[in-house]
Amino acid sequence: MADLNGKTAVIALGGNAITRPDREDTIANQFANTRKSLDGVVELIKAGYKMVISHGNGPQVGNAILRVELSRGKAPILPLGICVADTEGGMGYMIEQSLQNRLRAESVDRKVVTVISQVLVDYDDPQIQNPTKYIGQFYTEEEAARFTKERGWVVKKDANRGWRRVVPSPQPISVIEADIIKSLVESGTIVIAVGGGGIPVYIDEKGNLEGIDAVIDKDLASAVLGKQISSEILIILTSVDKVALNYGEKNETWIDQATVSEMEDYLRKGHFPPGSMGPKMNAAIQFIRDGGKQVIITSFENAGRALKGKAGTRILPD
Amino acid sequence: MADLNGKTAVIALGGNAITRPDREDTIANQFANTRKSLDGVVELIKAGYKMVISHGNGPQVGNAILRVELSRGKAPILPLGICVADTEGGMGYMIEQSLQNRLRAESVDRKVVTVISQVLVDYDDPQIQNPTKYIGQFYTEEEAARFTKERGWVVKKDANRGWRRVVPSPQPISVIEADIIKSLVESGTIVIAVGGGGIPVYIDEKGNLEGIDAVIDKDLASAVLGKQISSEILIILTSVDKVALNYGEKNETWIDQATVSEMEDYLRKGHFPPGSMGPKMNAAIQFIRDGGKQVIITSFENAGRALKGKAGTRILPD
Repeated sequence: MADLNGKTAVIALGGNAITRPDREDTIANQFANTRKSLDGVVELIKAGYKMVISHGNGPQVGNAILRVELSRGKAPILPLGICVADTEGGMGYMIEQSLQNRLRAESVDRKVVTVISQVLVDYDDPQIQNPTKYIGQFYTEEEAARFTKERGWVVKKDANRGWRRVVPSPQPISVIEADIIKSLVESGTIVIAVGGGGIPVYIDEKGNLEGIDAVIDKDLASAVLGKQISSEILIILTSVDKVALNYGEKNETWIDQATVSEMEDYLRKGHFPPGSMGPKMNAAIQFIRDGGKQVIITSFENAGRALKGKAGTRILPD
Repeated sequence: MADLNGKTAVIALGGNAITRPDREDTIANQFANTRKSLDGVVELIKAGYKMVISHGNGPQVGNAILRVELSRGKAPILPLGICVADTEGGMGYMIEQSLQNRLRAESVDRKVVTVISQVLVDYDDPQIQNPTKYIGQFYTEEEAARFTKERGWVVKKDANRGWRRVVPSPQPISVIEADIIKSLVESGTIVIAVGGGGIPVYIDEKGNLEGIDAVIDKDLASAVLGKQISSEILIILTSVDKVALNYGEKNETWIDQATVSEMEDYLRKGHFPPGSMGPKMNAAIQFIRDGGKQVIITSFENAGRALKGKAGTRILPD
């Protein structure tokens, strides 16, 4: 086994690690994209980091839901939690095997494993009464009304593009398998976990774990797991090299480094929109406020350089 | 944590643990069936066994393939290996959560985790040149010819019921994640692994792990994993209480106990047909020949009694 430097990192891979908008979405391309996205991850492993890898599942779970819909009456309906669990299996396998092959090729002796992850949420989370996360296909207003009645869905208008199902995206509280993940990580195993944000579960009136039709933000789930396993660093890999103030405007400014209080201030001032950098920054802030030492937000290509302080945006405690 | 007796068991749950032919195949029923099927497993856990749980995925992977087929052109085609990995996630979650709830209700302090499992096969396995395992739906002869040409499928006539795709069912050699599974099991964690027989992989000419369109018998995969983790006992849970000679005939005889050599003899004489008890007996024989101490084949209901020697069929070394 490689010499470990003792530090633990949680690396959250954005959806574009696996499905890229500019390439046809086939499984062969998903494997190819995954292999390429692992460059930065491999650098960190070679630097001796203990590691959890999490990943998004947006396009994959969207396709899973679409397949379930197109097979109604011919194959059992899968609830959203099972679709998420399925993607944890399929995508975990893809990332695991790609990483195993890379590590072997570079003579790095570290094991990799994929752990199916349930994430606890609060049944009284306001999102569960008032869901806001769009998933799946677009429908006509008539279909929307029918599915609300027949399937109990909540369907809302998504801008001017049509009607879509919305599901809750509640705040993650803890990862059920965190103790096991922690012991694996401490032994040097690289653990793929909380894929797609994890399978949302709550504790019912009898004290049982029970699934719920919801999705969890994968960066927030990664921050929560990071705290549970005492990770020093959370690395969020996405399609941009750095976080910007006034993104896309004339006075756009790239941030190299900021404290958590500064980022909270920028967030309040609207610099990080809900549909893009907002959720990542929320996760970054939560991780630092919960005791984390450092968050890096950068692109797949820059992960290794970012860790040496030569790229990316670094968020630090005050 | 409960007092462990030091013994390790691999328990292979048959497909009917989760999907029962006499009930509508909904996820709610799959959860209900799973909960009921765990009675015997829970007895073994309470007796202090360290444990791996494996499971079939026949109906589930059949439905996954059907959904992929019905969504052609609208969602990416998933290769068989990804479908198997998906079911390891979804079914693992279902079994894991059901077991966690049962253990909590009975105040048994044992952790449960689902590990996505790749299973190594030999690319030169004769099955890969000459596949024999039927999967998915029935087709007309015209469709069969078209899919052979367009999709490179091997399609064969399944008795008088129509044409079906056949895939290889190669011999499992080893489970890639076995070391990790072993260390988890030794620490008392109950590990759900090699679901559906595991994801078949081979080593390509560059030395990389690579998926292959195939399926692996879950009882054989369980026997192989059992050897790798030094399990003393393999328990195969199915729909019958015991193994029979002359099954279904007038001179039908139930077997309480037999040596591996006796069973090999019965197998040669045709007592265990390929479509039912044959694969289970092959797995049992392989497990004992590889150094295992005991195999029990029985029904879900009788698992606990069988371990006390009061039910089921026991296969022992010579």
